[in-house]
Parts: sequence; C-alpha cells; structure tokens
Amino acid sequence: MSENLNALEKAQVLIEALPYIQRFNRKIIVVKYGGSAMVDEKLKKQVIQDVTLLKLVGFKPIIVHGGGKEISKWVAKAGMEPEFINGLRKTDAPTMEIAEMVLNRVNKSLVSMVQELGVQAVGISGKDGGLLKVEKKLSDGQDIGYVGEVKEVNPKILYDLLEKDFLPIICPIGLDDNYDTYNINADDAACAIARAVSAEKLAFLTNIEGVYKDPEDPSTLISELTVSDARKLITDGYIGGGMLPKLNNCIDAIENGVSRVHILDGRIAHCLLLEIFTNRGIGTAILGDEEHHFYNE
Amino acid sequence: MSENLNALEKAQVLIEALPYIQRFNRKIIVVKYGGSAMVDEKLKKQVIQDVTLLKLVGFKPIIVHGGGKEISKWVAKAGMEPEFINGLRKTDAPTMEIAEMVLNRVNKSLVSMVQELGVQAVGISGKDGGLLKVEKKLSDGQDIGYVGEVKEVNPKILYDLLEKDFLPIICPIGLDDNYDTYNINADDAACAIARAVSAEKLAFLTNIEGVYKDPEDPSTLISELTVSDARKLITDGYIGGGMLPKLNNCIDAIENGVSRVHILDGRIAHCLLLEIFTNRGIGTAILGDEEHHFYNE
Amino acid sequence: MSENLNALEKAQVLIEALPYIQRFNRKIIVVKYGGSAMVDEKLKKQVIQDVTLLKLVGFKPIIVHGGGKEISKWVAKAGMEPEFINGLRKTDAPTMEIAEMVLNRVNKSLVSMVQELGVQAVGISGKDGGLLKVEKKLSDGQDIGYVGEVKEVNPKILYDLLEKDFLPIICPIGLDDNYDTYNINADDAACAIARAVSAEKLAFLTNIEGVYKDPEDPSTLISELTVSDARKLITDGYIGGGMLPKLNNCIDAIENGVSRVHILDGRIAHCLLLEIFTNRGIGTAILGDEEHHFYNE
Amino acid sequence: MSENLNALEKAQVLIEALPYIQRFNRKIIVVKYGGSAMVDEKLKKQVIQDVTLLKLVGFKPIIVHGGGKEISKWVAKAGMEPEFINGLRKTDAPTMEIAEMVLNRVNKSLVSMVQELGVQAVGISGKDGGLLKVEKKLSDGQDIGYVGEVKEVNPKILYDLLEKDFLPIICPIGLDDNYDTYNINADDAACAIARAVSAEKLAFLTNIEGVYKDPEDPSTLISELTVSDARKLITDGYIGGGMLPKLNNCIDAIENGVSRVHILDGRIAHCLLLEIFTNRGIGTAILGDEEHHFYNE
Amino acid sequence: MSENLNALEKAQVLIEALPYIQRFNRKIIVVKYGGSAMVDEKLKKQVIQDVTLLKLVGFKPIIVHGGGKEISKWVAKAGMEPEFINGLRKTDAPTMEIAEMVLNRVNKSLVSMVQELGVQAVGISGKDGGLLKVEKKLSDGQDIGYVGEVKEVNPKILYDLLEKDFLPIICPIGLDDNYDTYNINADDAACAIARAVSAEKLAFLTNIEGVYKDPEDPSTLISELTVSDARKLITDGYIGGGMLPKLNNCIDAIENGVSRVHILDGRIAHCLLLEIFTNRGIGTAILGDEEHHFYNE
Amino acid sequence: MSENLNALEKAQVLIEALPYIQRFNRKIIVVKYGGSAMVDEKLKKQVIQDVTLLKLVGFKPIIVHGGGKEISKWVAKAGMEPEFINGLRKTDAPTMEIAEMVLNRVNKSLVSMVQELGVQAVGISGKDGGLLKVEKKLSDGQDIGYVGEVKEVNPKILYDLLEKDFLPIICPIGLDDNYDTYNINADDAACAIARAVSAEKLAFLTNIEGVYKDPEDPSTLISELTVSDARKLITDGYIGGGMLPKLNNCIDAIENGVSRVHILDGRIAHCLLLEIFTNRGIGTAILGDEEHHFYNE
Repeated sequence: MSENLNALEKAQVLIEALPYIQRFNRKIIVVKYGGSAMVDEKLKKQVIQDVTLLKLVGFKPIIVHGGGKEISKWVAKAGMEPEFINGLRKTDAPTMEIAEMVLNRVNKSLVSMVQELGVQAVGISGKDGGLLKVEKKLSDGQDIGYVGEVKEVNPKILYDLLEKDFLPIICPIGLDDNYDTYNINADDAACAIARAVSAEKLAFLTNIEGVYKDPEDPSTLISELTVSDARKLITDGYIGGGMLPKLNNCIDAIENGVSRVHILDGRIAHCLLLEIFTNRGIGTAILGDEEHHFYNE
Repeated sequence: MSENLNALEKAQVLIEALPYIQRFNRKIIVVKYGGSAMVDEKLKKQVIQDVTLLKLVGFKPIIVHGGGKEISKWVAKAGMEPEFINGLRKTDAPTMEIAEMVLNRVNKSLVSMVQELGVQAVGISGKDGGLLKVEKKLSDGQDIGYVGEVKEVNPKILYDLLEKDFLPIICPIGLDDNYDTYNINADDAACAIARAVSAEKLAFLTNIEGVYKDPEDPSTLISELTVSDARKLITDGYIGGGMLPKLNNCIDAIENGVSRVHILDGRIAHCLLLEIFTNRGIGTAILGDEEHHFYNE
Repeated sequence: MSENLNALEKAQVLIEALPYIQRFNRKIIVVKYGGSAMVDEKLKKQVIQDVTLLKLVGFKPIIVHGGGKEISKWVAKAGMEPEFINGLRKTDAPTMEIAEMVLNRVNKSLVSMVQELGVQAVGISGKDGGLLKVEKKLSDGQDIGYVGEVKEVNPKILYDLLEKDFLPIICPIGLDDNYDTYNINADDAACAIARAVSAEKLAFLTNIEGVYKDPEDPSTLISELTVSDARKLITDGYIGGGMLPKLNNCIDAIENGVSRVHILDGRIAHCLLLEIFTNRGIGTAILGDEEHHFYNE
Repeated sequence: MSENLNALEKAQVLIEALPYIQRFNRKIIVVKYGGSAMVDEKLKKQVIQDVTLLKLVGFKPIIVHGGGKEISKWVAKAGMEPEFINGLRKTDAPTMEIAEMVLNRVNKSLVSMVQELGVQAVGISGKDGGLLKVEKKLSDGQDIGYVGEVKEVNPKILYDLLEKDFLPIICPIGLDDNYDTYNINADDAACAIARAVSAEKLAFLTNIEGVYKDPEDPSTLISELTVSDARKLITDGYIGGGMLPKLNNCIDAIENGVSRVHILDGRIAHCLLLEIFTNRGIGTAILGDEEHHFYNE
Repeated sequence: MSENLNALEKAQVLIEALPYIQRFNRKIIVVKYGGSAMVDEKLKKQVIQDVTLLKLVGFKPIIVHGGGKEISKWVAKAGMEPEFINGLRKTDAPTMEIAEMVLNRVNKSLVSMVQELGVQAVGISGKDGGLLKVEKKLSDGQDIGYVGEVKEVNPKILYDLLEKDFLPIICPIGLDDNYDTYNINADDAACAIARAVSAEKLAFLTNIEGVYKDPEDPSTLISELTVSDARKLITDGYIGGGMLPKLNNCIDAIENGVSRVHILDGRIAHCLLLEIFTNRGIGTAILGDEEHHFYNE
Repeated sequence: MSENLNALEKAQVLIEALPYIQRFNRKIIVVKYGGSAMVDEKLKKQVIQDVTLLKLVGFKPIIVHGGGKEISKWVAKAGMEPEFINGLRKTDAPTMEIAEMVLNRVNKSLVSMVQELGVQAVGISGKDGGLLKVEKKLSDGQDIGYVGEVKEVNPKILYDLLEKDFLPIICPIGLDDNYDTYNINADDAACAIARAVSAEKLAFLTNIEGVYKDPEDPSTLISELTVSDARKLITDGYIGGGMLPKLNNCIDAIENGVSRVHILDGRIAHCLLLEIFTNRGIGTAILGDEEHHFYNE
C-alpha cells in the first residue's frame, strides 16, 4: 500500500508524528483490547503492531484483554451446559476453570506476537503480584458465581515491569480475600488499572464507531464529550445497551486521574495509531471539563 | 504435630538452620516441581510453603513446573484421540493448544498459593520476555509435533523479577524462530534455566526416593554421587528407565555451572526443607568431582 | 537436644515461623541486651545466635548493650573508691574513663561473636557519626558527674550501616555540646534509638519474667499491657523499684512510633526467638491501645 | 503534501518504521551537519526535525556542525584581509576570535530550534568538559595558525548529557595543551567524536549525492561501499577533490568502532530520515567488510 | 608574595578556612561576574582561581557573566550606529546577533580558564535546556528591542550539570515564547537563577566597595544590611544610581530563598575568597531579618 | 599567629593549595598516627585538624592509630607484672584485655575530636566487618601471646564508610581464624590497609625527622628515596633500629599499589598539611622508581 508513496511523503508522515510523540513521551496508555479486533487475524496483527510502535517510540502501553469468543467455544467443547441467571451467564467453578485456561492462553499468544515484533512483553493476570483484588459481584442481589468486582489494585508489578522496559499484557482475572479465582469484566479491569496508574490515556477497542446521539443515525457520531456532556446524555436517555456501562467506566476513569478516554472502532485498521498520531482523531473522546480547552487550543 | 515440642526444642531447630541460611543467602535455587507432589493437595501446599520459606529467609527460588495429569484429562474432555509415535504422544496443534491452556492455569494456581502465603509471585512461560527459545525435537528422526528442545535461554526476565523481589514460577513452553508455540519437557526446562542463571542448587521433586544401584533393592539408595560416579553408573548399565535422562540432565547441569543437583522424593512432606536445613540430606545429591570435599568437610 | 526430633517435626517448626518472618521482614528491631544474659556465657551465645538469625531471615536488628558487672570490677581493680550521691554512683572523670574502656571492649567482643556466626557487624558508641547527643542528668538536682540524658539522636549512621547490611551494636556513651563524654543508662539509650528509627519492636532482656501485678505472686504475670493499662498500674501503685523507669520507657517508646515493646526474661534460653517466632509470646508485651486488636485477631 | 494521504497510508508508513526504530534503539548516531543544509532555512528546519525525531523515538543523536559561510561574512564585516598559505586560509588570532564567535552563535541557534521542537538540547564546544584536545595542524609543514587536529577526545560530557536526556550539539573548537583555542575541521571533529563514543552511525550531510565512480556520470553513484572497496577506489585514482579526505575519514571511523558511515545529500529534504527509515537508503553507505552481509540479509 | 610566609603561617591559614569549608559544603553559590574584574587580565585570573577553589573544596559555584565592554567594541567594528531610547541602547536584531556572538565567546573563554585549572566546566546560555524563558522588557513603555526580562527559570540543566560535577558558566541570553533570542541584564539573570536553585549565597562582583550611606563619604560603607534596613535606606532616599536596581535585586533574592547576598568590590584581588574564608567579610552583605543573628553569633 | 597576615597573603596561601587539592581529590590517604603527636594535646589537636581539613577539601583520609603510652599505664594500674620474651613484651590474655580497652577508648576519643570539627567519623577496630584477619606472630620462633600478623584485609567496611562520607578511624586489633583477639603493630596495620585500598598516600607520623644516611648527622636527612635507593641503604647497613621495619613497611606498600609513603616528624605542627600543601615537602618520601620523575617534573 504505502509503496505507492514517494519518499518525501513518507518522511512527512513521520515528521507529523513528532508533536504526538512528544506529548505522550513516557506516558502510560492503557489499551482495552477486545471485540472484532481480537477475532480477525489481520486486525489482531495491526493492533499489536500499533501498541508495539507506541512502546518503541517511548510511550508506556499496557494491554488489558478479554477472551473473545474463545471461552464459549471451550465451554461447549467440554460438554457443559451454560446456566443463566437474570440473563447473565453463571460462572460456576468448572466454567471459571475453563475461562482461566482460555484467557491465559490468549494472553500468552499476545505475548508471542509482541515478542515477534522485537519488544519484550510479559503476560500476567490479576493474580500475579496481587495486582487485582476482587469481591463477588451480585446481579440484582443474586449470586452468579465467580464473577468479581475490582476492590483494590496493587500496581507495583506494573511499575516494576515498565521500569524494566517490558510491555505488560493483562488478563482480567483476580483473587478475593480467600484467594479464590474470579473472572472480571475486561472493561472494568482496564478502567481500574488505568485509574491506579493515573494513565494518560485509556482506549477501548470496540465494535462500534463511537458514541452516537442517535444510534440509528450515523451522522450523530460525537467526536468529543466532556464528562458533563456524557452525564447529560445519560440523564437525557440517549445512551443505552452496552454503551451505558462503558460510558460510566469512562466517566469514572476521567474523574479518577485518567486524562482522556477513547472509544475507538477496533474494526478500523490501525485505529489506535490513527487516533494518537493524526490531527483528527477517530471515534469518541471523553475528557474532563477543564481539559476540554487544553486539547483544543 | 509440632505442638508437642516444647519451646526450647523449637528454638533449637531454628538455630540449627542458621548455617544453612547463611550458606544459601541470595543464592538461586531452581525447583523442578512435578509428580505426586503436584497431585496430592496436602503435598502441594507443603511444597509451596517450603519454597515460600526459602524466599523469605533470603534465598532466590525459581519454580519450574509441569502439568501433571491435567493435560491428559483435558485432551480426553475435548474428545481428542491421542496419537503415538515411537510410543511418544504426538503433540499436534490442538493438543498443544490444550497443553498451553492447562499449563498456564496450573501456573497461575501456584501463583495464588504463593501470594496467599504473603510472597509476591509472577507466573510466566518461556514466551514471556523471550525466556525460552526452542527448536523442534525429533524422536528417532520422526516429527512428533510441537515438542521443543531448549536452544537458548534469555534470563533477563528472571533477573528483573528477582531484583524486584518476585518469586518467578515458570511453565515449560517456548517459542521457535517462527514464534510457534512448543511444549518442553519440564526437567529439561528446569535444567536449562538452572544453567543459564548458574543456580546454586537444582532440585527435582520426583516420585522415587533417589538413585539406586539396584532399583529392586531399597538398601542400595545412593545419597551422594559425583559426576564421575554418575557417569560410571550409566556406563555400567545400572541406570535405566526415566532415571537415565534425569541423571543426564543432572550431569549436564553440574558441568555447566550449577553447584549441586538433588533428586528428592516429592512424596515426603517438606522434602525440600529437610534437604536444605538438616545435616543429613535426603534423596540423592549429584555434585562436581571437586565439590565433593567442600560439602563433606 | 533437637536431635531427638524427627525430620518432619523440624520442618514443621520452620514452617510455623513463616508468618512471623513475613510480618517482620525488613523491620527494625532494637534489642536492649543486659543483665544475666550478659554474664552467663551460654546465654550470651544464645542471645547472639538469636539476633544473628533475625538478621539472616531479613529483619534489621540493632543491639544496644550495657557493661554488665565489668565496670565495677575494673573500677575496683584500678583501686578507686566509689562515691555515692543520693545512693547513685557518681561518675567522675576517672570512672568515666574506665566505663568507656570497658563498654567499648564489651562492644567489640559482641562484634566478634556476631562475625563468627557469619554476619557483618559494626560496633559503635553514641560518639560515632554523632549518634547520641546528651546533656548532664541531675539526680534530685545534684551533679552526679558524667551521667547523660539523651537530648537528640542522629540516626544517619544506623541507616547507613543497615543499608550496607551490617548489624549495628551500640554502647550507650554520648557527647554533650562541649564534646565531653557521658555514660547513658542503656535502657534509656535503647528507648531513644528505637524512637528515632521508629523500630517495629523494642525488646528488653531483663532478669525478671515480666511485669507482675503482685511481684510476690508469680501467677500475676501480665502477658500483655496496653499503654492505658500500664499507666493505670503505675497510678494504682502496683509498679515499683527498677520496673518503674523501665515501664515508663516502654510507654514513651510506644507513644513515639515504636509498635511494640517486650520485657523478656533474659535468663530463658533463646527468649528472643521464642517471643518472635511462637504463637504464645513470653514475658510482657506493651503496645498501643489501638494496636491491641491487630495483634490479637 | 501529506494531507493528500489517507489515514491508512499514514499508519502504514509509521508501521514500516518499526524495524528501524528497534534496530537503532538507544544507539548513538553522530550527524555532521553542514553545507547547503545549513544555508537554506527550509532544509535547516528539516534537518533539525529529523534529528529531533530520532531523539524522540529513542535514538541518541549528536550533532556536530560547521559555521557555513557565516565566518567569511564576519571576517569581511570586521574589515580583515584573508591571508592564504598553500591555498588554505590562515587562521590568525583575530580570525580565530571571529570564528569562535560565529560558531558559538550558530551553535546556540541550533539549540533554539531543537528546544522549539520540545527536546532538551545543550550546545557545547570542544572546550566544555575538555571534550576535544588538539594539536596544531601544519599544511605541508607550514604554520597556518590556529587550525587544530584532534589529539584526544574525552567523551565524559557527552555520556553525561545523553544520560540526562539532552541532545548534544557540538561546534568544532578545541584547546591545545596550552589551553589556546583552535578551529577544527567539522568532518574531522565528527569523525573523532563518532570513534570516541563508538557510534552506531556517522552521517555526513554534504552537497553531493554520494560517491561516484565517475563524478561526471550520475549513473555511477555507489550506494554501498565496504572499506576494502573504498580503499581500492582511492588507490585506483577514482576519488579526488574534497571527497578524498571525507572518504578517508569514513574508513577511519569504520576501522575504529563505528558501524556504518553515510554520505548523504543534504539538499534532499529529510535525507536523514529517509536513510534511516526506508528500505532503500540514499547516498553512499560505507561499512566494514564483515558488516556487509548483516545489513544485506 | 606568600613565599615570605613561613610554613606554619601557611598551615594556619588553611586551618582557619576549616569552619567556612564546613558551613558551605555542597551549597550552591551563584557568582555574578562582571565589571573591572572582567577587564583586567590579572583580576580575571584571580576570580577564576577563586571560583575553582570553591568548587574543589566542595562548594557548588555557578558563574553568571556579562559581556563587559566587548559588545560595544564589536558593534563598532561592524560599523553599526548605536541607537538610544530613553538613554538606553536599543538592541535591534543585528545588535542582538553581535551580542550573542560576543557573550558566547566570553563564555567559552571562561570555560577554558576553568578547565586549565583542572576543573570540568560547561558554558551554556539561557537557551540550553530551556534554562531562561523571557518576555520583552519595555523601557517606560517603549520597545527597546531584544531586551528580555526573566519570566521563568527551568533549573534542570543546572542540577544535571552539578550532579555530574561540572561548573556551570552561564551567559545571560534567553528565549521568549516564540523562541526569539533576547539579551538579559546579567544582574537580573544571576538573581533569577539564584532564586530558582535556592542558592546559599549570591555574590555580585562590582566596581564599588559596597553600599554607602553617603557615597561621598567612604567611612559610611555598610558591612551588613538586613532586608528591612535596605528597604529603609531606599525609602529614605540614600540609594541612587546603579545601586538602586542592584539592591532591589538583592532584596528580591533574599525574599525568595537565597540565604545571603554580597556586593563585593571586584577590583580587590581574591575578593570572593576573602569574603568567604575570613572572619571579617568585605563589601556589603544583605541578609534576611531573621538570619541576622545566626551569622553573628 | 596568622592574624599578622594581611588578607591578600591569606588568599594567596589558599590559592597555592589549589593544585594539591586537585591532585589528591577523592584519593585515599592512610595516616598512621602515633608517637609524640598522640601525647602532646596541642599536637594531637593539630593532627586532627589536618586530617579533617583533608576530608573537607575532598580527600578520603583514613586514620590508623596506636595506643601511645596508655597501655603500659593501665597494665601498671591493674597491678600486672610485664613479662618479656626476647626483649618483647608478652601479650597474655589479661594484657590483651587491657590493650583492647585502652585502644578502643583512644579510638573513640579521636572520633570525638573529629566530630567536634564538624566531620562525621566512625571508630572501628579490625574486628568490625571482619576488616583484619590475623595469625599469631612468633618472635624468633617463640610464642609471645596475642600478637597478630595481618593475614588478610577485607576492606568492604572502609569502602562503605567512605561512600557514606564518614572518616574511618581504626585501632589495630584483629581476629584470628578462631575469632580470638590479637594486638597488631599499628605500622603494620596501616601498611596492610593502605595496600588493600590502594591508597594514594601512606603517611607515618613519627618522632624523628625522617630517614638519615647517618643518624648522628642531621645534615644527612634524605628528602626523597626510591624503592631501589631504600633497598640499597638497607643492604649497605645505613638503616638500623626502629627505622628498619618501618622502611621495610614503606617498600612493601609501594610495591603493592600505594603511590607514595611519607615518614613525617609528628612533632612539627601541622606536618601533614605542610607535606601535602606546600611545594617543598618535609620528612622523607619513599616512592616507586618510575614515579620518581612524575612527582619531580
């Protein structure tokens, strides 16, 4: 593709990246990686290339990933019947066992991909170094099994790995006070980690283009939202479905030290790079009320 | 049990540990953990207690573990038919996938156990930080799938984790030059790692009491072997079965910078602690010809 | 003695030490060493073994010692007549000269004993690095010579020695603003040092079993006292003799950042180890009112 | 220009830079900056952008610059008559005074430009920190004034500045043993510095396209030369004029620890970036005989 | 001169320096160097010797210098006509160009002199590392060209150079927000820098003996002034001419963290050394109201 | 005395010290302190002032001292009869006990004096940190008790104390392999320590002016001796008495990494300062054959 470009055009692109490289130099960027971008092999490779490039030019990316559709596949393979409570899958002990196996394998396959690009990666779960402490999450007061809510983040292991120049890749599993294993929603885990390390950016790779005022009307895509705007949209009933918890996560992150959160369309090739290195970002950015001006001046 | 001891006896035991604590202070001890000690829950807990204690009193233990019988169990669950070549199980891609899932889950369950005892652990595979580079291992010239032989160890990640005071727990999976995933024999992996970090000790937890001159006759258990002795035993045909590769691994380790290798009976409670902290070790120790006197003076 | 124990019992004792090793890892423990434990050669060796073990398993012990009966012995040898004021020995210049000689020799003999056990020790007085600044202490308004009260502690030298992995051994001599040499009560010096470094523990090795409600009745030994309890005992007149200043020292230490103070019976073999490593401590522990629950949960 | 590119093309260019960013990560690159690239304001800005980008993506660039035509201009302004010996301008004391003023001003103007791009720069001469020790250079045995030859490089100041994350910008002035000030040929200074720090690359920005076999015939531009090739070209009489000393400098650098030297056409926009970040370099590269294969595999 | 002294007298002088060496050990001392001391070659050498000695005995001196009469000389040489506004020389672009050339050359000549005495120096301007940010200074509301007022000091480069054991020598040039070059009054620059690093001392080398109550009457030289005293002198109209801004600078420095400011007579040989190392200082010292006693006890 | 000097003369003396301060900056200087300089209170103070000054101006002095006449005094006080073997005092256990007490008290009194001058000192013996390992020294094959010969120096404690900016003061007592306490000749201890740390200088403060060719004729004082010269003087029989072992110590030091040894007359006020800071040293200097020129150029 880029072979059509002449040399000068290439140089120009690199030079245009300069101010962005400066702005985020040594800053922590948490990437929640999931959705289509985890299923399509080509997109997968592009996401990993993007994150690796961020690492090499001096940022400090951290990946938090889910298990994609692999968990369901293996639950079925093991001949287990899914049980639902309030429409949510119950994570009993055998399901948790499979989930942990699958998530860790996904985790290590991402490690391989980063290593292949010449960057040192370490795959960990929330168990390692006591990273994620959880408590049982109830659904409308009902026990849905080993589903945890992050209660505490101990980021020492992340700072240690970053100091030693590794790219940390995290699967969202944690321990409760009895050292039992729990699954955590990957969005929640990414948000809790971004807060704990005061990340400069938290980017969610999703299967939608961003936040719409009217999901039916593509022209209502919002490219930038302050926390106040986001709150108003929710209050006014514009946000529903899976976007509601995600947007609440974004607000929570911004209010707890993260500078900017992005909801990106993971189906777009190199969406992460485009967001960070080009003048006009893609997807929807959520930012603090007071940050609004800084980024727009 | 120990509640029968009076206070002074207890103090005495601690004081007797003094010279051993000094001798191994800040030394690396690689423990190959496998066999019965991985199946029996009580033994499992004792092994983890032992290693954690070693960490706390100033040693630098590293655990390398296998998958026990879990891999076979899950291969069966997935409804797969094992295929054998020269009597060895062929590790095709789907089998490797299951092996990786199982090994990583075992890995993280060991991490939980260590964390529960108050020590920071990190579970990694040979993929993380490029720890283990492998090449395909043939069996009598035949391809048996994704079974790897360690070609190169890059111990940076281990030194980094030890420096940051973590206990590294390693599952024996590595990458080849094409970044494909391979299973590695856990004994071989432990041996390669012990060599790479010039471990003070390498301890194999096994299901036998040690090396016998005559396996039929328990009275012929050998408590200490120099490399020369071990070679002679092999040449003279006394060693067979699974002990042959293990003993070759021991010889290889000693000749490449490891000070002492132990073949311990993992079925004995706290065998690791007993070996290290008491005057009369258990199992069989293999040591360099010249080290013989130092340890026996 | 411990040779009567079987291997498993020994391992059990070590394992039981685990939680204590964790709790005090890298914590500073000041040991006031004196009384019978300094006279009896066997007890002396045991105390030194205990402290050395604490050092080796990761604690940071500091010894503060007195001169035992050696000072009186040498005063007599030098043909000097002791002079008393209000029943207290007057420390004139020649007496101070002898005291300094004796205390420093005791100091270096403790250094030898620790070195012999393979741990690096440095013997210092309060003069070295300006550790202890004193002012003259009067007895009921009367000058009793070169007896000093600690006015200021400059702990830099202790942090430097601990950082370089030495075990500091301190004799209680200090300098006043004119750089004259003064003797300091060893209990007071230990207490002042424990405060200055916010020690986790301060342990007094004494010639009694602990604090009694009724010293005549051994059954009234108190195993744990909060600061409030201790104050009440004093107010109610239960505490007298040499225990009064000691208990005041304990209260002072607790109120100034030391977590727990122990009055131990130095005549019991390995009393220090028993206190720290067994479930039921010995002697009397003094602790803050709010700490009470933490240690007892 | 690059606004014509679509987003994906831009991302592609960044991704293509990945392997180069890895290869030169934390490597020192010495850039001899001079010629047209110092006169044309647009080219000047592009060179500075290039070097700043190299710094930001993790390389360690060092700039060595000359004075362009500024020195002659100021000599004329000051009403001084140039004196020539063997066709070389004699650098008497007043000329040296002007040269030093001009070079230092050029130096600080480059510092401003780098600072403006958000990178910390420090402008030094060979006097600072004793960086360049010189001795008088004779021209055919004749004294041509304060023209120095580098005798010794003390790179401590460079390592200190790089460690503190500054971009060092050096003007080629040095001190002799009497601490008199001397002018140094900028090519020679760059070469001596590249040797002293074992630079990964040394790049000369020149006014020609590279080395030609026949300078009259543009089609004879040589894109890669081993040291042996270069020697042969010289011996065979193909190299003359200003290229001869330059090529000798290149050979000297390669033989003294520099991995690769580039003769680039400074008149091409972003020539430095193109050379480093694209598959087909520009200009002529000189490399060791044995390096030939590594770079071409 | 000193050869007339006998050995013991020499030793005595060194011993007398002891308390001063202690008092200022590792303290930062900013020396504003200008006036006659920059013109007379012998005085120049003595100032440099003094500062170098301060460095060698453990102080951390920083030199800030002006351009003496060199700037005017070169402006004339270049055939430029000085233009005056309100009696102040207008610094247009060509004048600024010359000023920058001259100041940087003076800067590097001071570097040579320090290097010759065996101490590592680095000559920088306010451009390097973004040390001095300025804004245009108006004179009675009129634009007088590139004359800047210090708006912000970024002392990182100074701390870095001091940490690496260099003596920083600074010429008073800075950049405004558009990265244009401005000249700064050297007194102002020295004062701003001393404030930014909380210097222990700020010493101005001037052409007068100090502050007089009556400049006509040498007997009214004031050897010590508190800030209150200084303010009162100004209010009462005793201070006029060039001393007024200088004294305001002194007050400003003291009120912003500098412990003591000295106005010294740079025409006295070794005035700096005499001020620092002898019991009776020379010139006028300005100090905080509360510091008054400390220095006089 | 020096109050007779005018200010400029004082400054001159300080400036003259510059080259010496540079030459010995951060160099280790071992001072063997003994003889009259330890008895006369005024000389004592001057020696301590000298060493403290050396410390403050950036050298790294280490003091090794003897016990002067204090040991004999206390042996007599204790009513003990000295026993002689081959004319040497036998150091039985009670004598060693007194020697250790006295030496440590002298040690700490030197610490006080240095502390009073504002420099941090630590007084240690060869026991601390295992500094001096000894073996029994026989006199003509006869056991003369606890007199030790240095067998091994472990300088870690010295490097640690110097790094933490303390001035180490050492009394010459060591431990043998059985951890028994031995007295060491202070000259021997100083020599062994200077060798172990590759001191720049080793200075012996003695009661004589230096080495004479003819001790009867003061005009034959030798101010500089190469090792070869010294050997020849010994062979030719010019050296006798206490000077013989001292000169052998000097030769030994020079041949083992010490750059220069001085035999100084401790009875001269500030002899140490005069030797180091003035052009014409005092006493006798012993240096390597090849160093001869360096120091004399």
